[in-house]
Amino acid sequence: MDKKLTINGRSERIDYLFNTDLQIIQSSELFPFSLDSVLLARFVYVPIQHGRLADLCTGNGVIPFLLSRRTKGRITGIEIQPEVCELAERGAALNHLLDRIDFICGDAKMLPDYLGGQSCDVVTCNPPYFNKEAARDQKTNPHLAIARHEILITLKDVIEVASKLLKHGGKFAMVHRPERLVDILAGMRRAGMEPKRVQFVHPRKEKAANMVLVEGAKGGKSGLAVLPPIAVYDSEGRYTEDVWPNV
Amino acid sequence: MDKKLTINGRSERIDYLFNTDLQIIQSSELFPFSLDSVLLARFVYVPIQHGRLADLCTGNGVIPFLLSRRTKGRITGIEIQPEVCELAERGAALNHLLDRIDFICGDAKMLPDYLGGQSCDVVTCNPPYFNKEAARDQKTNPHLAIARHEILITLKDVIEVASKLLKHGGKFAMVHRPERLVDILAGMRRAGMEPKRVQFVHPRKEKAANMVLVEGAKGGKSGLAVLPPIAVYDSEGRYTEDVWPNV
Repeated sequence: MDKKLTINGRSERIDYLFNTDLQIIQSSELFPFSLDSVLLARFVYVPIQHGRLADLCTGNGVIPFLLSRRTKGRITGIEIQPEVCELAERGAALNHLLDRIDFICGDAKMLPDYLGGQSCDVVTCNPPYFNKEAARDQKTNPHLAIARHEILITLKDVIEVASKLLKHGGKFAMVHRPERLVDILAGMRRAGMEPKRVQFVHPRKEKAANMVLVEGAKGGKSGLAVLPPIAVYDSEGRYTEDVWPNV
Repeated sequence: MDKKLTINGRSERIDYLFNTDLQIIQSSELFPFSLDSVLLARFVYVPIQHGRLADLCTGNGVIPFLLSRRTKGRITGIEIQPEVCELAERGAALNHLLDRIDFICGDAKMLPDYLGGQSCDVVTCNPPYFNKEAARDQKTNPHLAIARHEILITLKDVIEVASKLLKHGGKFAMVHRPERLVDILAGMRRAGMEPKRVQFVHPRKEKAANMVLVEGAKGGKSGLAVLPPIAVYDSEGRYTEDVWPNV
């Protein structure tokens, strides 16, 4: 943790992102970014020199910021919660990325109307993971509830929006819970994005996976690669090199 | 390798199965059993005390033999190649399992006609992995070609037959290539068998998976568990404990 401050009546902090020079503005009263987003931003294919990228449900912008270190393309993030989107916008300024990253405060389902259909080379998303019915957080923290539960957007919505946004051959990458893998793979295929790469994240190597990274190609041929597993912690409870490589 | 002999003009050998007292008759001119079958026989759920189990594309019977050590139920294997099915039948006698295991030489697609629909608690299958088009082995070894390529039975056939054979709540477990995972998961769901457990097998922990074990439940609710990965070899090229546990 680097700096703590209070803005608009909420306490905030600015952290450095995992192994980078990027800073991220977080508020414990909203919700913090998570390892999920960091792993997704590493996993996804990106065009290096140029291209158009979109990040749905972008939160405080962690995925666009991390992607900016892998591509010179233009990145748009969309976030429905104004208080959260504002953190992302300030983060873009803080990281001197206003020329390449822009944030839209709005419903991700409307993004094809803003950017145009078949406009993107890459779409990423760390969507809400849980059913609306399971939204127990709702009473305690409505911001967290919207980020974690399918209240304002569902898995099916995310997949359909991504497919509309992508050019032929463009890539869609998402992080989700393994419980939903059948819905994800079948849903992507149904939406014309063939799943091409999958990677599972296990809390430890001898535990069941609790996260899955999936990438599909719009109009791609069938044939899936399952990458080497990622184990987050070693037997002593430290991050493994899979998560925090010595680079 | 234990014993070599020549029967019906073909050279055969009798091997002990991985970590067991079970013997298996193999012929290099037909095709040997593989690690795939051994891992499938360990992975699948089985009822311990009784029940009806069926193994499609049983080959020389390795899966029924291994399952006989985990269940007291009745097991039927079906194999379309007479020369191969004969190895399985002789293996059942050799292992004193004739009272609990029977083999049918025939087309797996006909098994629901023999056993009846909704008759089984468990169905297993190590099916042909490769497209008919890729059947380059065909010219050199027709037995191997039939076992490895979708010449006489396809993935879709296997899934449909399994679904017909299973009782409500019964389990279907299969081993296959990860490339086909989307077809497998979507196909099982379409046939009314919800995928419940998946486990990936990697040649080494830092390599992409080259095998996947999948289990579904007939009429099950959605929700998939991705088990800890199996790595076959360690960095020195020895079998890991995942494959050859010290029991």
